[in-house]
Amino acid sequence: MDDPCHLKVIDVVERAGSTPERWTNFTLTRVNDCLVRMGVFEGEFHWHHHDREDEFFYVVSGRLMLDLPERTVGLAPGQGFTVPRGVEHRTRAEERTIVLMVEGHTVAPRGD
Amino acid sequence: MDDPCHLKVIDVVERAGSTPERWTNFTLTRVNDCLVRMGVFEGEFHWHHHDREDEFFYVVSGRLMLDLPERTVGLAPGQGFTVPRGVEHRTRAEERTIVLMVEGHTVAPRGD
Repeated sequence: MDDPCHLKVIDVVERAGSTPERWTNFTLTRVNDCLVRMGVFEGEFHWHHHDREDEFFYVVSGRLMLDLPERTVGLAPGQGFTVPRGVEHRTRAEERTIVLMVEGHTVAPRGD
Repeated sequence: MDDPCHLKVIDVVERAGSTPERWTNFTLTRVNDCLVRMGVFEGEFHWHHHDREDEFFYVVSGRLMLDLPERTVGLAPGQGFTVPRGVEHRTRAEERTIVLMVEGHTVAPRGD
């Protein structure tokens, strides 16, 4: 059993604020077989999909555009969306956008 | 493969705002073997632990107190914390607090 006294608060907003990059993501914590990750997005990623992994996006600040094969989903702060496994998608943000992501721990960070 | 055109945006803040209860939680989406759940907390839960499941809490609004055996962790909006499996904990909120949770899909919603 982990000692909870050694565990730290994860300050998502502060970590995002201290990151100079326009496009980055990293793992905040592992929860069972999932990872909670943080993304800072500004600009456009490439189209990709994950064969075996769903991916959940939740917008903390900014605005995230999720391009899907037939439509684009726009997510404001407080909104989320799950991209099911196998579905092509592209993330895009015109302004600096902070996103929480939940995905399987086997997803390669840069997409399959 | 799911048809992404049928998938809906999950408006966490709106759903929390439309809930009259002072203490409730429900599942927003399943991501692989994890559930993303939303909690609206005002008041105090009971001490409990999950034998085999970690549990991640992320505060959307309000303020969450996480009582652990040796200390209390206070979480402001934008902050998160993972309670490892096996660790006793109690959630508590003096004001209405909206929380995103990530946990294994086998966790009983009311605690073990």
